[in-house]
Amino acid sequence: MSFRYPFVVSMASVDAAGVLFYPELFRHAHDAYEAMMDEVGFPLSTILAHGQWRLPIVHAEADIERPLAQGEHLVVEIAIASLSAHSFQVGYVFRGADSRRRARALTVHVVMDPQSGKALPVPRGLRDALESLHHSD
Amino acid sequence: MSFRYPFVVSMASVDAAGVLFYPELFRHAHDAYEAMMDEVGFPLSTILAHGQWRLPIVHAEADIERPLAQGEHLVVEIAIASLSAHSFQVGYVFRGADSRRRARALTVHVVMDPQSGKALPVPRGLRDALESLHHSD
Amino acid sequence: MSFRYPFVVSMASVDAAGVLFYPELFRHAHDAYEAMMDEVGFPLSTILAHGQWRLPIVHAEADIERPLAQGEHLVVEIAIASLSAHSFQVGYVFRGADSRRRARALTVHVVMDPQSGKALPVPRGLRDALESLHHSD
Amino acid sequence: MSFRYPFVVSMASVDAAGVLFYPELFRHAHDAYEAMMDEVGFPLSTILAHGQWRLPIVHAEADIERPLAQGEHLVVEIAIASLSAHSFQVGYVFRGADSRRRARALTVHVVMDPQSGKALPVPRGLRDALESLHHSD
Repeated sequence: MSFRYPFVVSMASVDAAGVLFYPELFRHAHDAYEAMMDEVGFPLSTILAHGQWRLPIVHAEADIERPLAQGEHLVVEIAIASLSAHSFQVGYVFRGADSRRRARALTVHVVMDPQSGKALPVPRGLRDALESLHHSD
Repeated sequence: MSFRYPFVVSMASVDAAGVLFYPELFRHAHDAYEAMMDEVGFPLSTILAHGQWRLPIVHAEADIERPLAQGEHLVVEIAIASLSAHSFQVGYVFRGADSRRRARALTVHVVMDPQSGKALPVPRGLRDALESLHHSD
Repeated sequence: MSFRYPFVVSMASVDAAGVLFYPELFRHAHDAYEAMMDEVGFPLSTILAHGQWRLPIVHAEADIERPLAQGEHLVVEIAIASLSAHSFQVGYVFRGADSRRRARALTVHVVMDPQSGKALPVPRGLRDALESLHHSD
Repeated sequence: MSFRYPFVVSMASVDAAGVLFYPELFRHAHDAYEAMMDEVGFPLSTILAHGQWRLPIVHAEADIERPLAQGEHLVVEIAIASLSAHSFQVGYVFRGADSRRRARALTVHVVMDPQSGKALPVPRGLRDALESLHHSD
């Protein structure tokens, strides 16, 4: 029910204390989201090229439970946390090599008409694709 | 009561749709926070070099109300949103050239002993410094 | 003859040793280049929206003479290092608060037709605009 | 004789034209370098924690032969391009899914005493480790 995305905390992502700089947590979350969208058949580059709608992120949040150090191998477990007529939420759990949770994040996505900037309903095909990664706990 | 930090949405910060990539919103928020900490006499580089405590960010969130486009001139208004014995919250409002609010963010900071990883109370000097940027609306 | 762009080495730009992570040197160089292009009347967002040509960077290089530490205030001095029929080079000198040179960089820009991917001559208007920041030392 | 590091051009790395923002080429090169240093037994986090020497990058350069688009799957082939008493050079070739070269980069690394900032010879153990990835074409 969830998609897994591994990454290493590299020098590019840490601050002067040697731990993950929090905006980089969101960057890795987004990389995981892109990989998930590829997996379900809706690559972001195709959505953008197609041009009929976009999926702007209107809210993002994260809790960092323990600092993530340079060199650590992490996995992002990503799933659809909620799915409604006009938006969906993506949930992310970051786990260390010992499988313990280290951080979590959530993003809220809406569907937008790129011409008018107006909200649109979640297209049927996308809805079906996301449903496969939807869990309700 | 608040500190202002101007920036331009540059190519480095946008996605393929030409709008601010949301992790970059947090990066700019952090740049504003660093400038504020300099202003109140607690530069992050000094805190780190001093080595007695650190200020990890344990929670971050943002709402993006309207997409921010490449080339836009923005201002971050930053203030202390709350201040308690063991943590403080920093609030950020992003405004466009017309002064309208475009996005907002919040970060929660705790004080940590870098040796033990244990929580510490907010040091008195820091507390007094942050008080000057504290508002309660 | 040159354009000046100030910036502070913030947490977002440093590595675990507390010094500028070198890809971030190029990011700041690009921010300076964008500010310069705005100044001479060719904002990158306008070039992209206009859609007749793009200015891809085909070569970039930098020398870091002394590490740049978190919290340092720097200035990028940027100028057109060369200007030919089909390309131009932008030169960057990074100076510390004491005006001493700390790093330098160079980028090579060509003009490209976005449809065909073919090279184009430097448009006359752009050429004239860049000429004002061209020096030959 | 070379080490391979795969990555995908994600939204985080592209500009408003949907192609790799060149400072991000260096970021991916550095991620590849870190993975290589892990492989040869000298993780950067260990070097930093050990504290006897650092490996600052004093020069970096890249040529981008064809723009790299969002969603592309690339491989970095990384090898030691030169190895002398006081420095070493790392070479990077970026290849697309069809194995054709799309970009290349080079970084020059020196050994530095973190206390004095003075140059040191390349330590024997590191030299031996790098030798295994050294080629002389």
